[in-house]
Amino acid sequence: MRACDLAMEYESVSVDSSALDAARLMAEHKLPGLLVLDERGEPKAILPASQMIKVLVPGYVIEDPTLAAVVDEQHADRLCQALAGRRVGECLPGTAAPPPIADPDDTALEVAALMAQMRSPLVAVVRKDKTGTRLLGVITASHLLRELLDKTGTLGAPGA
Amino acid sequence: MRACDLAMEYESVSVDSSALDAARLMAEHKLPGLLVLDERGEPKAILPASQMIKVLVPGYVIEDPTLAAVVDEQHADRLCQALAGRRVGECLPGTAAPPPIADPDDTALEVAALMAQMRSPLVAVVRKDKTGTRLLGVITASHLLRELLDKTGTLGAPGA
Repeated sequence: MRACDLAMEYESVSVDSSALDAARLMAEHKLPGLLVLDERGEPKAILPASQMIKVLVPGYVIEDPTLAAVVDEQHADRLCQALAGRRVGECLPGTAAPPPIADPDDTALEVAALMAQMRSPLVAVVRKDKTGTRLLGVITASHLLRELLDKTGTLGAPGA
Repeated sequence: MRACDLAMEYESVSVDSSALDAARLMAEHKLPGLLVLDERGEPKAILPASQMIKVLVPGYVIEDPTLAAVVDEQHADRLCQALAGRRVGECLPGTAAPPPIADPDDTALEVAALMAQMRSPLVAVVRKDKTGTRLLGVITASHLLRELLDKTGTLGAPGA
């Protein structure tokens, strides 16, 4: 099994997408994060849902969470206005790095090694040729785990 | 809305659970991670699916992913044997910290502040009283995002 066979569609947004739409997408589909693509459609970062929460919460409350209790309910209701008019690119943490990139011909073990080394929840599979760069899909850790367990015939077998 | 109303069931395992069963649970339910409970049933850590991948991949391949290509297919098939007979507690990274813990009476904003500060994908809601400690459930970042968006009536509204 090669990376191109393992790659699946994954919810993604552009750096130029509306931050509020991205937050809605995470909320409605119960996603732990989104893949963010740059202007050329290449993987730029993984945006965790917890980062969107961080954008919503006033800085002084993050520094001292005990202050959350003193923010009145009405103010809390207005939190999401922090997302209105903002782009996804503005919500990325300063430390955001591109996700690991696998070649379509990489083996499952090569993808696993990349994922383990980078401690990443997903690997993007990208084909690069003369016509440019194309995202084929994403391999999540749980999908790769399933593939590796299937290979050894242990999925669904009695507990070891 | 208080933390106790937001808390939901979440797939969890014990430190003493079989590592292979835990990997199967992640694979079958497509989970990005599991909540790990200690011997007393208290939240001990979050076990990401990528960490299970790391346990599967031989150390020399993680150090040098180019070596993955030279591991023959037959060897790759045996990878999952690395999980057989191991306990979940043995698979946790040395740096594993307990997830943030919220009190049942915490407000959504207090939970959000905690999540943002710890950059955690989830917060565990725990009731502590004279009879001991009881896990009420977990609040994920996407669930909290949904709650905060719902409050402001922006979920499903036209793009901002």
